[in-house]
Amino acid sequence: MSFRTHTCGELNAEYNQKEVSLSGWVHTWRDHGGIIFIDLRDRYGITQIVFNPDRDPELHNRSKTLRAEYVIKVTGIVNIRPEGTKNPKLSTGDIEVFARSMDLLNVSKTPPFSIDEDTDVGEDIRLKYRYVDIRRPFMTANLVGRHKIAIAARNFLNSHNFVEIETPMLTKSTPEGARDYIVPSRIYPGQFYALPQSPQIFKQLLMASGMDRYYQLARCFRDEDLRADRQPEHTQIDIEMSFVDEEDIYSTVESMLQSIFKEVLCENISLPLPRMPYKEAMERFGSDKPDLRFGMELVDFSDISAHCDFNVFRGTVDKGGKVRGLCVKQGSSISLSRIEELTSLARELGAKGLAWMKVDENRSLKAPIVKFFSEDLQKDLLDQAGAEPGDLILFVADKDSLVCTVLGHLRLRIAKSQGIIDTNRKELLWVTEFPLFEYDEEEKRWQAMHHPFTSPKEEDIPLLKTDPGKIRARAYDIVYNGTEIGGGSIRIHQREVQELMFQALGIGKEEAEIKFGFLLKALDYGFPPHGGLGMGLDRLSMLILNLNSIRDVIAFPKTQRAQCLLSDSPSEVSEKQLREVHIRTAGKKKEENK
Amino acid sequence: MSFRTHTCGELNAEYNQKEVSLSGWVHTWRDHGGIIFIDLRDRYGITQIVFNPDRDPELHNRSKTLRAEYVIKVTGIVNIRPEGTKNPKLSTGDIEVFARSMDLLNVSKTPPFSIDEDTDVGEDIRLKYRYVDIRRPFMTANLVGRHKIAIAARNFLNSHNFVEIETPMLTKSTPEGARDYIVPSRIYPGQFYALPQSPQIFKQLLMASGMDRYYQLARCFRDEDLRADRQPEHTQIDIEMSFVDEEDIYSTVESMLQSIFKEVLCENISLPLPRMPYKEAMERFGSDKPDLRFGMELVDFSDISAHCDFNVFRGTVDKGGKVRGLCVKQGSSISLSRIEELTSLARELGAKGLAWMKVDENRSLKAPIVKFFSEDLQKDLLDQAGAEPGDLILFVADKDSLVCTVLGHLRLRIAKSQGIIDTNRKELLWVTEFPLFEYDEEEKRWQAMHHPFTSPKEEDIPLLKTDPGKIRARAYDIVYNGTEIGGGSIRIHQREVQELMFQALGIGKEEAEIKFGFLLKALDYGFPPHGGLGMGLDRLSMLILNLNSIRDVIAFPKTQRAQCLLSDSPSEVSEKQLREVHIRTAGKKKEENK
Repeated sequence: MSFRTHTCGELNAEYNQKEVSLSGWVHTWRDHGGIIFIDLRDRYGITQIVFNPDRDPELHNRSKTLRAEYVIKVTGIVNIRPEGTKNPKLSTGDIEVFARSMDLLNVSKTPPFSIDEDTDVGEDIRLKYRYVDIRRPFMTANLVGRHKIAIAARNFLNSHNFVEIETPMLTKSTPEGARDYIVPSRIYPGQFYALPQSPQIFKQLLMASGMDRYYQLARCFRDEDLRADRQPEHTQIDIEMSFVDEEDIYSTVESMLQSIFKEVLCENISLPLPRMPYKEAMERFGSDKPDLRFGMELVDFSDISAHCDFNVFRGTVDKGGKVRGLCVKQGSSISLSRIEELTSLARELGAKGLAWMKVDENRSLKAPIVKFFSEDLQKDLLDQAGAEPGDLILFVADKDSLVCTVLGHLRLRIAKSQGIIDTNRKELLWVTEFPLFEYDEEEKRWQAMHHPFTSPKEEDIPLLKTDPGKIRARAYDIVYNGTEIGGGSIRIHQREVQELMFQALGIGKEEAEIKFGFLLKALDYGFPPHGGLGMGLDRLSMLILNLNSIRDVIAFPKTQRAQCLLSDSPSEVSEKQLREVHIRTAGKKKEENK
Repeated sequence: MSFRTHTCGELNAEYNQKEVSLSGWVHTWRDHGGIIFIDLRDRYGITQIVFNPDRDPELHNRSKTLRAEYVIKVTGIVNIRPEGTKNPKLSTGDIEVFARSMDLLNVSKTPPFSIDEDTDVGEDIRLKYRYVDIRRPFMTANLVGRHKIAIAARNFLNSHNFVEIETPMLTKSTPEGARDYIVPSRIYPGQFYALPQSPQIFKQLLMASGMDRYYQLARCFRDEDLRADRQPEHTQIDIEMSFVDEEDIYSTVESMLQSIFKEVLCENISLPLPRMPYKEAMERFGSDKPDLRFGMELVDFSDISAHCDFNVFRGTVDKGGKVRGLCVKQGSSISLSRIEELTSLARELGAKGLAWMKVDENRSLKAPIVKFFSEDLQKDLLDQAGAEPGDLILFVADKDSLVCTVLGHLRLRIAKSQGIIDTNRKELLWVTEFPLFEYDEEEKRWQAMHHPFTSPKEEDIPLLKTDPGKIRARAYDIVYNGTEIGGGSIRIHQREVQELMFQALGIGKEEAEIKFGFLLKALDYGFPPHGGLGMGLDRLSMLILNLNSIRDVIAFPKTQRAQCLLSDSPSEVSEKQLREVHIRTAGKKKEENK
């Protein structure tokens, strides 16, 4: 049986009077004065099928029994639709097919929701019936779009001498800072594989292997409590290159992104992308992933505050802190209760409070705290903020890192509610010169800001022993409209630097040997200078396709509770399976383990 | 620092007198009358570097300190080599580079084995120092070759409307017959994910999702005791199509293979590929993956044996068994001790023995058992075997399936030792019409020969309730030079057939609901006719690249004991990790679990 000569998205006036066969799903069924019209749907489109009682009463009768989502094969003759009944929205809207025969391939129960562009059914139901959900043109397009992004990335990399190399999934715990998924071994009782959080060590070893340019669309696993845009497993465009510095990475990755945008969206990104050191990003945008689609940059009021009579401000500056703020254009109409909400947000983020002044129509400052500022200082404030009549100025005073972070969040929150983000803009940039370490207040020790294989800047290496907090890393993130879509670094390729790094992180020699001994050993055998980057394919796809949820670009995602509602996993396994891999569940009673 | 202007495989006479920079590994170091020659190596090739003491004594002195596998950057001037010193084996053999400056990028200990085409070091050492092993041109070429095969497959599928869709790795136990790797859940105590043995159910659900043509280069996991060419994780070119029958699958997969052979080996495969029903393959070649590069087909001596006086043969035929044999061309020179070895092999495979006759120069049969055959029967034997003077005829008598299997193994063993396999031939074929079930003697029940979603032939469906052993499946394997490289089937798309199938397999309603409930439910919602195939990428790559071990096309393989000698995994994990996922190792004492 040949199921079809064409797809449901293919026929047009050129096929007039040709006999064709189509297979697909009954999308809609309409009886117009005895004539039955069916929209037949497949992945490629929709074609209108006509069952005319005058032509074939038996066939017409059978067509009456069809229901939504029945699967049929239809053979018939293409006809140009009468003028006035053409549908310009459909690629096949100029024609219809007069049915000559029909095979019922499968029936369907009434689907739990309709196969429409917009469905307001809850996501849980969509995930449980994912095979119905994906039939929606919205989801089909998302999966095809993701596929095209992957093709564009691969084509670019293949044509630039990169080799895709698969690295193991059953491997050893990798130190990416998150929790590993572990897999008990049957052959080695009491031992475990770990699923990779990334191919980091293996891709570095591939550089030691001389493979020169590696990539992989690699599945990565993190057993973390999931945020909105995280999944227990995600896919990374994973890249590593030998004999490179930052410039080589930037130009390669930028060109790859340019190629993806061109292939998928037919849009041109102009290169080179802007770059911004971490420090600048924090001070201007309060974020290491600044959204450049709008301004409202942070303003430094510290010098002015040092001379005012407002104790909170002056005291902060005296103690080495900072007073920074935002000038919200035309924000003086924001209500006090809304400002109260923003203050709550600031407090949640760790600030002690949020001060504000409104700029009236005469460009005078109005607020209870204005009285603590002399007229000169008020003028300085207005000038420093670039304030105009009708604006609102917000202030946070605290230690600088907190001030920036809080204002960064407020900036985004206000921009969204004010609707000032131009969603047509596509703003990519590199954030560079990250600190190598961040101090973990809870554990009272330094943590690697990226991972422990990140190279410090050459000139900062001596600080490893003296002042780790000051070291700048050769690390970089790529940011798209305020979201980090990828990050990487030039790696350490010299054993002595790697050992200094472990020391600075408080990883003892023995621990380093157990965890990373095989990498340390490889560093002894001619490891070339190298660097790379990992870019989240799921998130990149979501952003390029302009979607709100990462789950909309994943065929079978997990919920935020790490559950697959479709297959109902995780689930229990048999005692036999547990025995074979030499484990017991911790909660089980002894008797069950006999 | 810019590390290179060119690669080590790129320069030729056209670059004469140009200044270039190269980076790579010191492959060899030679002192010829005070002038030092270095072969500098990277992934792309080797370039000869010359350090002349007359030109720059200090640089020449530094070049003396270089050792094998040191990593250097060299800047210098390309020169055409003097006649007589050119090396036609190297793409860069016409030139050398006169060094002007040199940076030492990294040192190396003496590597555990040399970076040569042929190294006789044991595989364990190669795997432990895989990053040294991969520098060998042999391994580099293997990984690049595998990459090219993957590109060719993807390009073909992309251009034929297939969409690559990633399916979950953390999923539910799938019923492929092998043992699952399981992954304990942290969020759901006592519950587990399973790593997929294949994306089987998910790809079928993608057909229900209307995705029409799916593929994925999918990582698959099997916790089995490993044979020589198996790995705990392997990669499968996984394909599924809707609205197709076997012909659509055959033509698509054949064309894909044709495209791969063309792109990777520049060889043309003529299509369509031959097809052979399972029964014929067993009776002619004693194997469901017949090696067609040589003849020596099985010969049926049952009718002749029915009339002979040799009780073993006649008795077997009387009881419904078969007597089949092989005619080994010019095999009469095979020694009796060698025949004894073949007999041992036959016994290991389950046969009771192996009978033989030699054909002498007069085309007369010589052997102790010849006396049990009349002269007419002897003539019939010779004719049936197509025997010529100097041949050897071997016989096995038993129930037919055993006879065929044993002879199939003998056929391969003898062909290898006789050296009659033409290793230049590439023989691809489809084996079709597999039985749907095979009887599991140990468990006394029917097992699915492929998997329980394989569709029976339409006309055999009624046999599901009456005579399962007779049912032919809509299943097919693709075989290359005697190795199965892929297999698949048209699947069941109707719920009632799937339920009959589970019944025939002795899977009760409740068990079916727990294991496959989500698939059964999906069958209710308009599941289209569909089918597909999985093809082992590792094995395909090994065969196309003409290698002996699957591990030679995998960057970081496991040993046959499922161990990674490089990273030393599996390994122990902390008690904290075990507690977090609510498991204990079975051997641990109670105190350790406090």
